[in-house]
Amino acid sequence: MIGRLNHIAIAVPDLAAAAAKYRDQLGAQAGPVQALPEHGVSVVFIDTGNTKVELLEPLGEGSPIGGFLAKNPGGGMHHICFEVPDLAAAVGVLTSGGARMLGEAKIGAHGRPVVFLHPKDFDGTLIELEEVAPVRHPL
Amino acid sequence: MIGRLNHIAIAVPDLAAAAAKYRDQLGAQAGPVQALPEHGVSVVFIDTGNTKVELLEPLGEGSPIGGFLAKNPGGGMHHICFEVPDLAAAVGVLTSGGARMLGEAKIGAHGRPVVFLHPKDFDGTLIELEEVAPVRHPL
Repeated sequence: MIGRLNHIAIAVPDLAAAAAKYRDQLGAQAGPVQALPEHGVSVVFIDTGNTKVELLEPLGEGSPIGGFLAKNPGGGMHHICFEVPDLAAAVGVLTSGGARMLGEAKIGAHGRPVVFLHPKDFDGTLIELEEVAPVRHPL
Repeated sequence: MIGRLNHIAIAVPDLAAAAAKYRDQLGAQAGPVQALPEHGVSVVFIDTGNTKVELLEPLGEGSPIGGFLAKNPGGGMHHICFEVPDLAAAVGVLTSGGARMLGEAKIGAHGRPVVFLHPKDFDGTLIELEEVAPVRHPL
């Protein structure tokens, strides 16, 4: 069911400073700061070639990572995201097996349907599932 | 400097149960349990196609993940590992920039030289750097 690791998300208290560390100290490819007010975060993508690190900073009131940073003011690994070809099918399999979703599926920061699984069902790890666009082969 | 995300490591209290969840609920490719007594862990690799998830369970006394699981008994994301082509060069750049290493470079679980960076220098994220074997092209 799950496919590629789409990204690992790290919540940080200072996005510009975090991006600078990845770029200047680790020599990574760090993109620009992107504000995603509808998702309550600002984000910088680190391209590792095979996957992405998403550095997340809260944006606005009620950010979904506000509580995490209140508990972990220095930042920390927040979630990992796996790609699935069919989110509704994945949710059906998982819920029938007893796994709990954190809310309903919605459109995520990449414009694709996503859902989050309860971290208590997966060893303290918050897992996001993101439906990826099907690969279309020309005739 | 850093290249591919080699793996994300998740510390779990029950390795067989965690591997079964990834295999049976998430439909992932989960390998067998491997005991690595010289590293103080047992490990199951989840192959996501583009990278790996390493599920880690303490093995023996003084396991390097024992303290983490004492603080997080339900498990949690433990570290991420980036590949570097030259570990000594990477350590030189990082230490000259003020980053702190957790101990000296040593041979890691994959048989390659590794070092861990202090999580307080990288937004609460424990980062492992692993030197990858150079790609050898035939003449």
